[in-house]
Amino acid sequence: MSEVLTRLQAVLESRRGAPPDSSYVAKLLAGGADGMLKKVGEEATELVMAAKDGLPQRIVSETADLWFHTLVVLVAHNLSVDDVLAELERRFGRSGLDEKASRKTV
Amino acid sequence: MSEVLTRLQAVLESRRGAPPDSSYVAKLLAGGADGMLKKVGEEATELVMAAKDGLPQRIVSETADLWFHTLVVLVAHNLSVDDVLAELERRFGRSGLDEKASRKTV
Amino acid sequence: MSEVLTRLQAVLESRRGAPPDSSYVAKLLAGGADGMLKKVGEEATELVMAAKDGLPQRIVSETADLWFHTLVVLVAHNLSVDDVLAELERRFGRSGLDEKASRKTV
Amino acid sequence: MSEVLTRLQAVLESRRGAPPDSSYVAKLLAGGADGMLKKVGEEATELVMAAKDGLPQRIVSETADLWFHTLVVLVAHNLSVDDVLAELERRFGRSGLDEKASRKTV
Repeated sequence: MSEVLTRLQAVLESRRGAPPDSSYVAKLLAGGADGMLKKVGEEATELVMAAKDGLPQRIVSETADLWFHTLVVLVAHNLSVDDVLAELERRFGRSGLDEKASRKTV
Repeated sequence: MSEVLTRLQAVLESRRGAPPDSSYVAKLLAGGADGMLKKVGEEATELVMAAKDGLPQRIVSETADLWFHTLVVLVAHNLSVDDVLAELERRFGRSGLDEKASRKTV
Repeated sequence: MSEVLTRLQAVLESRRGAPPDSSYVAKLLAGGADGMLKKVGEEATELVMAAKDGLPQRIVSETADLWFHTLVVLVAHNLSVDDVLAELERRFGRSGLDEKASRKTV
Repeated sequence: MSEVLTRLQAVLESRRGAPPDSSYVAKLLAGGADGMLKKVGEEATELVMAAKDGLPQRIVSETADLWFHTLVVLVAHNLSVDDVLAELERRFGRSGLDEKASRKTV
């Protein structure tokens, strides 16, 4: 299932350099940093509100929105999903994910 | 690589009900909604600042922080990484990820 | 000069109960909590970006936007500018504003 | 009452150049942009949560926190409360605050 992030990243990468009016992402990517970062702030706020309301489907939906827009930021900086997953792996890798070992760190 | 999210989720789930002082996550989970949501807002702001600074390693690191804390929120609501990936799949699934078809939607 | 906040609050109060399509504020007030709170998160993010860019006029403009939308939130909860100023006065009042006395607190 | 903002600004200005460990504000001002901007994002999130909870005293308290940290940002950029109030006055000045005239704009 999780390869959807990598596939989504590939689509976002294909939008780089496309005419801004050809798609939502092309517009975000062409618009410079502030447009996509404003969305990150906005979607984080919406996730906070969904969680305060305790609405599971909205929490899922807003998390998807937030992850999506962080992918746009990654792609805009020539970074990848794997960079982030490797960072999480580095922090919480096999040993770190071991129940006993990670009790102190996570 | 991407199964790190699922493994991380399993660790977070194992922290539910643990004594708050046993780990950072146990403390977040025991502390109720506001503590973890405050972190979501905080990490989103830090990602925005890292991106404005154009620092690749910090963008990766702050994105990892942000994804990590959204995982905590998911786990706190008995939701899963797969719920979010399924939502992204639903929106940007095979047909949606097709270059031509998705040009209008993504 | 600062009575502009109080005058602005009075205008916002006059928008309560007005048809949503009669003004931007009437729409925000009629739309419930999430619309106005989303704006608070959005304007905070925009202030952060303006400050990272070091652009004085945009910092002023985004701060004005942020204060404006916090006023909408206050009015929506039947609170007032004076409530917030009284809180600041309480925290940093005459004695607190005294250079020596406040060194510890501010 | 509202001159508290101006008095608070004067205190913040007096903290510029002070040893970082002499006060909370001196530390924020000496720490560069990110520390104080992180607080803006954090306090905005806390205001959102307080408003979702509908707790009047916490809404007032978090708004005070948010305004306080925007004052720190203003002072760090040699800007003033009056700059922001003048901007609000410009947007919603006497004529703009006139009920009929402002119906379209506010």
